[in-house]
Amino acid sequence: MESAADLSPGRMFNLEGFMSDNKERELGTALDIKLDSAGLLTAVAVDADTKEVLMVAFMNQAALEKTIATGKATYWSRSRGKFWVKGEESGHIQEVQELLVDCDQDAVVMKVRQKGAACHNGYRSCFYRKIVPGDAAASSKLEFVLQRQVDPAGIYKK
Amino acid sequence: MESAADLSPGRMFNLEGFMSDNKERELGTALDIKLDSAGLLTAVAVDADTKEVLMVAFMNQAALEKTIATGKATYWSRSRGKFWVKGEESGHIQEVQELLVDCDQDAVVMKVRQKGAACHNGYRSCFYRKIVPGDAAASSKLEFVLQRQVDPAGIYKK
Repeated sequence: MESAADLSPGRMFNLEGFMSDNKERELGTALDIKLDSAGLLTAVAVDADTKEVLMVAFMNQAALEKTIATGKATYWSRSRGKFWVKGEESGHIQEVQELLVDCDQDAVVMKVRQKGAACHNGYRSCFYRKIVPGDAAASSKLEFVLQRQVDPAGIYKK
Repeated sequence: MESAADLSPGRMFNLEGFMSDNKERELGTALDIKLDSAGLLTAVAVDADTKEVLMVAFMNQAALEKTIATGKATYWSRSRGKFWVKGEESGHIQEVQELLVDCDQDAVVMKVRQKGAACHNGYRSCFYRKIVPGDAAASSKLEFVLQRQVDPAGIYKK
């Protein structure tokens, strides 16, 4: 009876629902990344153990492929216009344990094992400040919520 | 002695280190969002309790201000070109418990209480598939890691 239900005309002929590119991308099993107008997707690195969000950055298609192939988080630097293997200079690499993609395949979440500090400012996570709302948005302030883990002066030695 | 150290010439005149916009933005306590060329910043919603990443989307300055003012996650829809109070149609709102900003202030993490499902496809999180690496990047496949929580057909009734 279940197989009959699966093959019901409603299901077989629901072309909009099951056959469009969008549905395939959202509910299928093919990796079919959707890049933005700059050719990028958003990448969120979270600590595999604590689940803390460590950083948010961008990848292009090749950076994602490198990340998948090497198991090391590799980004595309918008400001420098080049690949960027996280930790290449600092040693603070991110070993990818699991890579998740979102519904419309324009963002990934990486569960990583972070060596050292994710943030170039020496904090474990780049999200070391919270927004404390003021009376108006313009008067909102930031408050530090993390302690520095590493002296940033020691991270990038030339 | 400490006050003398604070006023040492090295500190007072390290203009590059302490006075530049960048350092202020990265290590100061003023909310000074850095928008991309499209006028947007990245917003990551995580479950305040489980820390699970629920979704990744975008905000413009006004959407961030609305989020701060109302305590309800408000995004800017790139595809529809309009504000989007999460859950406005579906009831699946996100009550913001804490709002964190990253080092260069171009991304925020929102710790939210999610009503219902974050994803329009009926999953608790938009990140319901993981990438299973193949021999080559092109052969990577997706595998579902979450069960649907809500029938998506019932979420958006007109």
